[in-house]
Amino acid sequence: MSQSSFGRKFAVTTWGESHGKALGAVVDGCPAGLSLDEKDIQIFLNRRRPGQSRYTTARQEGDQVEILSGVFEGKTTGCPISLIVRNKDQRSGDYGNIAFSYRPGHADYTFDQKYGFRDYRGGGRSSGRETIGRVAAGAIAAKLLKELGISFLTYTHSIGPVSISHLHPEEIPNNDFYMPDASAADKAGEYLNQCMKEKDSAGGIVECRINGVPAGLGDPVFGKLDAELAKAIMSIGAVKAVEIGDGIQATLSKGSKNNDGFSIKNNCVVKTSNHSGGIMGGISDGDEIILRAHIKPTPSISLPQNTITNAGEIQNLEIYGRHDPVIVPRAVVVVEAMAALTITDALFSNMSSRLDRILDFYKK
Amino acid sequence: MSQSSFGRKFAVTTWGESHGKALGAVVDGCPAGLSLDEKDIQIFLNRRRPGQSRYTTARQEGDQVEILSGVFEGKTTGCPISLIVRNKDQRSGDYGNIAFSYRPGHADYTFDQKYGFRDYRGGGRSSGRETIGRVAAGAIAAKLLKELGISFLTYTHSIGPVSISHLHPEEIPNNDFYMPDASAADKAGEYLNQCMKEKDSAGGIVECRINGVPAGLGDPVFGKLDAELAKAIMSIGAVKAVEIGDGIQATLSKGSKNNDGFSIKNNCVVKTSNHSGGIMGGISDGDEIILRAHIKPTPSISLPQNTITNAGEIQNLEIYGRHDPVIVPRAVVVVEAMAALTITDALFSNMSSRLDRILDFYKK
Amino acid sequence: MSQSSFGRKFAVTTWGESHGKALGAVVDGCPAGLSLDEKDIQIFLNRRRPGQSRYTTARQEGDQVEILSGVFEGKTTGCPISLIVRNKDQRSGDYGNIAFSYRPGHADYTFDQKYGFRDYRGGGRSSGRETIGRVAAGAIAAKLLKELGISFLTYTHSIGPVSISHLHPEEIPNNDFYMPDASAADKAGEYLNQCMKEKDSAGGIVECRINGVPAGLGDPVFGKLDAELAKAIMSIGAVKAVEIGDGIQATLSKGSKNNDGFSIKNNCVVKTSNHSGGIMGGISDGDEIILRAHIKPTPSISLPQNTITNAGEIQNLEIYGRHDPVIVPRAVVVVEAMAALTITDALFSNMSSRLDRILDFYKK
Amino acid sequence: MSQSSFGRKFAVTTWGESHGKALGAVVDGCPAGLSLDEKDIQIFLNRRRPGQSRYTTARQEGDQVEILSGVFEGKTTGCPISLIVRNKDQRSGDYGNIAFSYRPGHADYTFDQKYGFRDYRGGGRSSGRETIGRVAAGAIAAKLLKELGISFLTYTHSIGPVSISHLHPEEIPNNDFYMPDASAADKAGEYLNQCMKEKDSAGGIVECRINGVPAGLGDPVFGKLDAELAKAIMSIGAVKAVEIGDGIQATLSKGSKNNDGFSIKNNCVVKTSNHSGGIMGGISDGDEIILRAHIKPTPSISLPQNTITNAGEIQNLEIYGRHDPVIVPRAVVVVEAMAALTITDALFSNMSSRLDRILDFYKK
Repeated sequence: MSQSSFGRKFAVTTWGESHGKALGAVVDGCPAGLSLDEKDIQIFLNRRRPGQSRYTTARQEGDQVEILSGVFEGKTTGCPISLIVRNKDQRSGDYGNIAFSYRPGHADYTFDQKYGFRDYRGGGRSSGRETIGRVAAGAIAAKLLKELGISFLTYTHSIGPVSISHLHPEEIPNNDFYMPDASAADKAGEYLNQCMKEKDSAGGIVECRINGVPAGLGDPVFGKLDAELAKAIMSIGAVKAVEIGDGIQATLSKGSKNNDGFSIKNNCVVKTSNHSGGIMGGISDGDEIILRAHIKPTPSISLPQNTITNAGEIQNLEIYGRHDPVIVPRAVVVVEAMAALTITDALFSNMSSRLDRILDFYKK
Repeated sequence: MSQSSFGRKFAVTTWGESHGKALGAVVDGCPAGLSLDEKDIQIFLNRRRPGQSRYTTARQEGDQVEILSGVFEGKTTGCPISLIVRNKDQRSGDYGNIAFSYRPGHADYTFDQKYGFRDYRGGGRSSGRETIGRVAAGAIAAKLLKELGISFLTYTHSIGPVSISHLHPEEIPNNDFYMPDASAADKAGEYLNQCMKEKDSAGGIVECRINGVPAGLGDPVFGKLDAELAKAIMSIGAVKAVEIGDGIQATLSKGSKNNDGFSIKNNCVVKTSNHSGGIMGGISDGDEIILRAHIKPTPSISLPQNTITNAGEIQNLEIYGRHDPVIVPRAVVVVEAMAALTITDALFSNMSSRLDRILDFYKK
Repeated sequence: MSQSSFGRKFAVTTWGESHGKALGAVVDGCPAGLSLDEKDIQIFLNRRRPGQSRYTTARQEGDQVEILSGVFEGKTTGCPISLIVRNKDQRSGDYGNIAFSYRPGHADYTFDQKYGFRDYRGGGRSSGRETIGRVAAGAIAAKLLKELGISFLTYTHSIGPVSISHLHPEEIPNNDFYMPDASAADKAGEYLNQCMKEKDSAGGIVECRINGVPAGLGDPVFGKLDAELAKAIMSIGAVKAVEIGDGIQATLSKGSKNNDGFSIKNNCVVKTSNHSGGIMGGISDGDEIILRAHIKPTPSISLPQNTITNAGEIQNLEIYGRHDPVIVPRAVVVVEAMAALTITDALFSNMSSRLDRILDFYKK
Repeated sequence: MSQSSFGRKFAVTTWGESHGKALGAVVDGCPAGLSLDEKDIQIFLNRRRPGQSRYTTARQEGDQVEILSGVFEGKTTGCPISLIVRNKDQRSGDYGNIAFSYRPGHADYTFDQKYGFRDYRGGGRSSGRETIGRVAAGAIAAKLLKELGISFLTYTHSIGPVSISHLHPEEIPNNDFYMPDASAADKAGEYLNQCMKEKDSAGGIVECRINGVPAGLGDPVFGKLDAELAKAIMSIGAVKAVEIGDGIQATLSKGSKNNDGFSIKNNCVVKTSNHSGGIMGGISDGDEIILRAHIKPTPSISLPQNTITNAGEIQNLEIYGRHDPVIVPRAVVVVEAMAALTITDALFSNMSSRLDRILDFYKK
């Protein structure tokens, strides 16, 4: 599988750069018969679109998606779905002063080392705009999962030192940060205002909860569901840690506390706790899947920074232009998209795990 | 790629169960010309072998590896290297009382859901013995990397609440826990003794530092080096979180602190700090790569636990048999092996990133 | 790897349907530094473009390609290259009478069986227009291979019963069939005129010769270079057989005749014959690679045919519309494109076969 | 996917050399619940075992297979099945005179070019013994397919110029060549006796017919079922051409003859002919799948041949030792095995092609 593709059975290939003509994705392996139009995808893209609050870059992009293939008379055909979003507000002049600098915290230096070459217009393929392809593809996965009763709840868990203290889903759309806690959102706003005043930036945590996933997804050993999720989430730029279930807290716990017991309720197997975050031995257990993505502070800041140019000259760099003081809120939908892609792929991969079910499938 | 394979160019496929005849691995894509014999692999396997301290299971296994193919006159041939370790001390009688129970914290229930079937003799494919294949393959990767000047320093960073306060590599082999801090190791021993007395178990953190990795490994977007490492590490049973560089601490930092500046030293590009952990934009930057694996407490404990049988009967389960009160020390070499496999694969995948280097390669 | 992708290191994903908005390809894994513009690709596309002689469909398509990503200042960046060709002359009305029929020799029935659904406008994804993505991607591969001194000579070897009796490359562009034999081309024209008069169609053979391929490409066992080529060529619609070197004739030969001896010429190893077609044990031997694709007669004919509708009604079908009486000439560039993709991928995959060369590569 | 693996969902990785300790295969992705023991596999291996007639090498190998993992209490567990066959009669002394020669028609030269190194004991990984892994894995696939009502009829279609003139399955096991025509088998024997007297060798054709394959397997474009079969078959050493259905004859036919009409019989869709060989547009149509593998004459012959040593000395080589004058009969089961692996993988890959069927699968 090539570097720009994700997934085995439900596979997405993304392309495009921050300051090129367009960005897009090809979704391959989507089953035939799913109702799909551009609005389904646009809803997801709008959640990551810039320019929606004072805490995001002022770059103006409608990020309108066009479906170029794979849908006929309102339904998917089983053939690859090609999606395109044209760039509009490229304004590459903004990046003039950084064209030959290695911006700290960015991939400028490493791209130059790898390719002997760098798209100096603003990150190119390593820009956050790259996530448009992920989100567009994830929207299709999420729509498909909804048909199977699988739903996502994704939100900002913390910004800098400010964490949520409750989880009220209805509050998520009511603040600039997609936080399920209005009071925490207020404090996060204050913290960010202070960061912006200091020409600095902040990080934070995105949490994602997935309900309705059937037990049995994921494979033992290398194809564990949590391993696939970890790759999916860590592949998002700026993510520096991934947790499943109790995550880092589990290391401080003891077996007797951390183990989830089993019981019977209404004739169904239930777990008496969910420290595992819905995955046991790499396989979904039917319970809520919980994961967290830890995101570093936005690297583009206006404060002067020590760096060098690609000619090796030492430089004191100030980055102007349009940058988010925190990318966490816009990363919420990206985390959800990557989780949706991963779960969909696992669902399809799992269909051949038992001979009896294969016989059932083909004997009809 | 199938569920039991890892890697694209340097690929390992593992097989075998805890209580089967044998376990093993097939390493495919190892270049011709590497000096290799069984001792190279045995050194790694001995680091995870049970029965070496009072803190590990008493199961007696020599874990002697045999090379079945791919090596001729002491050198690799470029063809697949098949490795086998025979099981000796299977003693499946030990598992009698848990044959029909879903052990809390184990994969019993999820395997049953996935396969309609479970190897009740002690975890089967989800047992920690599965890691033999990983470690054997990782030993080959590590030997190959050594030829390129790439080295690993891997150790226990914490057990339960006891963390190291310094990093003295020479102390690692001198305690039962592979801790680079003798005093922390003493405290960890006390903590574990208490756990064992309480019939309970502990978790902890493994840290891995990789030096000598050239800049340029890893790909933008889905094939980021940190994403591949996250998958590799999270695929190890009992790992619940993965961090790269500053990891979770980065979310509390600010851009001005978290960004690593660049400078020039002895005519070379250097970073003035390494919060990123050696990876920028998913591509290695030539600096030390740092990662941490967070490991949950051993699920097998002797304390009674509430669970059910596969017939749906509620049960109060006590697990006897031979279990590690903490698996962190034995996981050290597993983390190192998975990191070595990942780096090797990235090294090979990177060779075609630039046309000028491809022309050089083939023009000789 | 998903169904619409080809290649491991140099990978192409194609998308698009005959009567949709557009068709295209994403080329991933192209190294940085290759000079590339749209003209390089257009030259290839023009070789398969319809409407260029009386023997091809009259559908009017300029098939103008646009590069959307992966090229900056005239050079490839190492990031995915997205290519798009808009459909213009869709005229789906032409297909009205066949919308509900299973056309003999087409994929209508099998698509319906697989997807429960069919794009009745003219083949959709199974149309010959699908090859636009292959050819556009192959043009990039061919340009890259040229830098390494690898060249292709591809032509029509036969149409129906008319075969070439000599190989004069300079005659290839001078006839409607890309035949390297002007006299055979005349006879092929007569044969096709007769077929058209009878409202019938013809098949034929495409031959491809590849020079300059270094010895060593391809892997033992499943990744043999001839196996990869066979897949590449057989994946072209209408191909029913693939030969390498002497191919089917080899079965009638004897070992003493079919074996290629070795000798020394100008201090280089040479083969004294090339029955093998440049591949031994699945690995290139440095000699000319020779392959042949056998193509069935165009299935769309105006003669009445017995078939059924998707409602199960028996029908006598006459297909009108715009169809090629033979697709062989337009398949020439498709065969070349698929061969170029395969060789490029093998070149990159081969770079890690020897430790000494890896050490050289990274020690610079 | 690595060079020594085949298949995506039902994947086999093979390993081992002709003169090493053992050969084997790891089958990954086999569903849980298939009854399997060593006898099931041995039956297949016995069909390719040497020393069974005067027309095969006299090398004595029992080729006894041992199952090392993945089967518990007589049934597959869903985990990887590791298979091993120990080499016994290695007698590498036989190969003394060819240790430094590049044998014509063999992979000696190309291995040396690729790996800088060659296992001179008799082909190593490029020996026909490599097929043991394929056949062992294919036996499992074939057993699984039988549960779904899919069966294989594979036989020798021709040896040198001697072809079958009828297809009587019951005659296949009654002659040394697996020919379904006793009279042709007699003539083939005479032809081979003459070849052996002349110290020469012969080639031939294997034909495989697969019944019971449901319509819908295979994917459009690159994952066509015939493309996967072509790769599978061409990856067998000594195969130089692959045909599907009418194959090369199709190029001489016309559309009106070559198209398969549709009709209705007993309320089922039927084709009125099967020129396509059961595959339309790369997707199975429910009819018998027919393919042919064209196999070159055995390259090891006792007649003197011109070649060079790896030191570049010109040499007149006579190959002694134990060689088959024709490998076609022993290749019959190898072709069947590769076809079975391909069909099984396509069956599993196809399960997610339609949303309605996915909903059915998971809604139970």
